[in-house]
Amino acid sequence: MSVLGRSAARALFAAGRVARLATVDAEGRPHLVPIVFVVDGETIYSAVDGKPKRTTELRRLANVVANPAVSVLVDHYDDDDWTALRWARADGAGRVLPPEHPQARAAVDLLVAKYRQHARERPAGPVLAVDVTRWSGWAAAEPMG
Amino acid sequence: MSVLGRSAARALFAAGRVARLATVDAEGRPHLVPIVFVVDGETIYSAVDGKPKRTTELRRLANVVANPAVSVLVDHYDDDDWTALRWARADGAGRVLPPEHPQARAAVDLLVAKYRQHARERPAGPVLAVDVTRWSGWAAAEPMG
Repeated sequence: MSVLGRSAARALFAAGRVARLATVDAEGRPHLVPIVFVVDGETIYSAVDGKPKRTTELRRLANVVANPAVSVLVDHYDDDDWTALRWARADGAGRVLPPEHPQARAAVDLLVAKYRQHARERPAGPVLAVDVTRWSGWAAAEPMG
Repeated sequence: MSVLGRSAARALFAAGRVARLATVDAEGRPHLVPIVFVVDGETIYSAVDGKPKRTTELRRLANVVANPAVSVLVDHYDDDDWTALRWARADGAGRVLPPEHPQARAAVDLLVAKYRQHARERPAGPVLAVDVTRWSGWAAAEPMG
């Protein structure tokens, strides 16, 4: 196994299609949801659906306002080959951007370019930005040869 | 889309092969790692590798001791079909079992039965047990027909 350096971890993370976002509420309880995302520089962006004000979406935003510390994980799992296991994690500070914020618009453009499904229905809600302070990761030993 | 009830969420969770575990440290910062796991009753078990005392493994255990509130997520993502997206989450309290604890031995038996790779190398370290207080989940709308 090997610990990934910052740039390898960032590259592995950015190549992911789905990530998991952990936030913490005011009482210190974690909250966890899957997200689609883009990485732009040292910031991760994900969009919140503008239409139904789902509890889970409001919760992640309220948590970030109460406690900006977040962790986001991309991983690769293979049931048949545990030497292929790897993951990358981004730790940082979250902030909520209203839909009309220029950074939110730019982030949604990137999301639309990355995800065909977002292109079919452009996200209209707030954008969660995570300013990453640490990229880390781990990969199982590559098979020899 | 539909919100999953407790039993549907639990079933979706238990069928997963990989999950993501969120713990929180004493300063309120989240920590996130992928885990393999089993569900037995209302408890989730995962093993910590007994050999290399990796920082990330020690961290999750230290966090649970400092703050037992944890969240664990199983999700299914399909780039081509967002109507197939679904996830299940378990929120509960974590506790660390030493390898020789009867519950730890029983959990490792279940892990070995579920994962061929664990069978090849039986986990020898502590076991993290999560007593689940809430199963929740979400599924995108099923395609018609």
